[in-house]
Amino acid sequence: MLILGLDPGSLHTGFGLIDKQGSQLRVVEAGRLSPPRDLELPLRLARLVVGLEELLQRTAPELVVLETPFFGLNARSAIVLAQARGALLATLAARGLEIREVSPAEVKSAVTGNGRADKAQVAQMVRLLLNARSAKWSSDATDALAVALCGAQRLRMDRLADPRRPAK
Amino acid sequence: MLILGLDPGSLHTGFGLIDKQGSQLRVVEAGRLSPPRDLELPLRLARLVVGLEELLQRTAPELVVLETPFFGLNARSAIVLAQARGALLATLAARGLEIREVSPAEVKSAVTGNGRADKAQVAQMVRLLLNARSAKWSSDATDALAVALCGAQRLRMDRLADPRRPAK
Repeated sequence: MLILGLDPGSLHTGFGLIDKQGSQLRVVEAGRLSPPRDLELPLRLARLVVGLEELLQRTAPELVVLETPFFGLNARSAIVLAQARGALLATLAARGLEIREVSPAEVKSAVTGNGRADKAQVAQMVRLLLNARSAKWSSDATDALAVALCGAQRLRMDRLADPRRPAK
Repeated sequence: MLILGLDPGSLHTGFGLIDKQGSQLRVVEAGRLSPPRDLELPLRLARLVVGLEELLQRTAPELVVLETPFFGLNARSAIVLAQARGALLATLAARGLEIREVSPAEVKSAVTGNGRADKAQVAQMVRLLLNARSAKWSSDATDALAVALCGAQRLRMDRLADPRRPAK
């Protein structure tokens, strides 16, 4: 099963696509969508949507995972992120994709076992879990892979909770 | 010139379309886009985008005006609005539409002459300016018309500041 994690940011939106076959996890692609900085906000958002559509078309994920909004940011940062998030969510839903939202603490906990792990610990565990110790991912891509990993773990937990669900 | 004002909200997005011919202003249509409340957020955003696209196709505005985000809201409300705003802006920009952002104070000032006017004063002046004293608009639609009026006034000011600009 192809699981796409997205990490929207004000300048870059990280993405990480993993292939989950039973308990086996493999990175298919990771990177970031970076609309030109000099564009005005509406055009940047439109470019972000085009980038996401290209990614979806090329990779055809079956599940897309995003973090729930983080309310600890200041209002201005929170609004910038939420605008990108809204444009992405509308695009995903319009395509009928299955979307799952996970909290930042769930992501940290899923990847490191500690809901309050720091960024470096998360990044290190993402590399370990994905058997990619020497990968050169941007922090946006690494964060998106962490989100995808959390989505993969949640699927496994759903299946344990409801054995009638088919394994994917 | 057809000017569309939009007022994104968590449940309803108001819209108000006015036709500006010189200093003459006329309401073409006003109402609100209200995706079903029971849908999850991504689907609500996708429905909002479909509603906007239908409106744009039917009415073909030449300028779209929105308020800049208001930072006085609590973080949760600000994020909900910003997500809707992001989905709308991406859609508008993807269609190559001219977008103008105006602050809440500019809207109040343009409509009432007072940047700190209250909602009732704004609504009353919108009706007066649009010669529609008995119109039955929702508050979302009225707010969107106020935003459109502000956009119309700004165009006139731009023209005064630069006489080479063609009158519209």
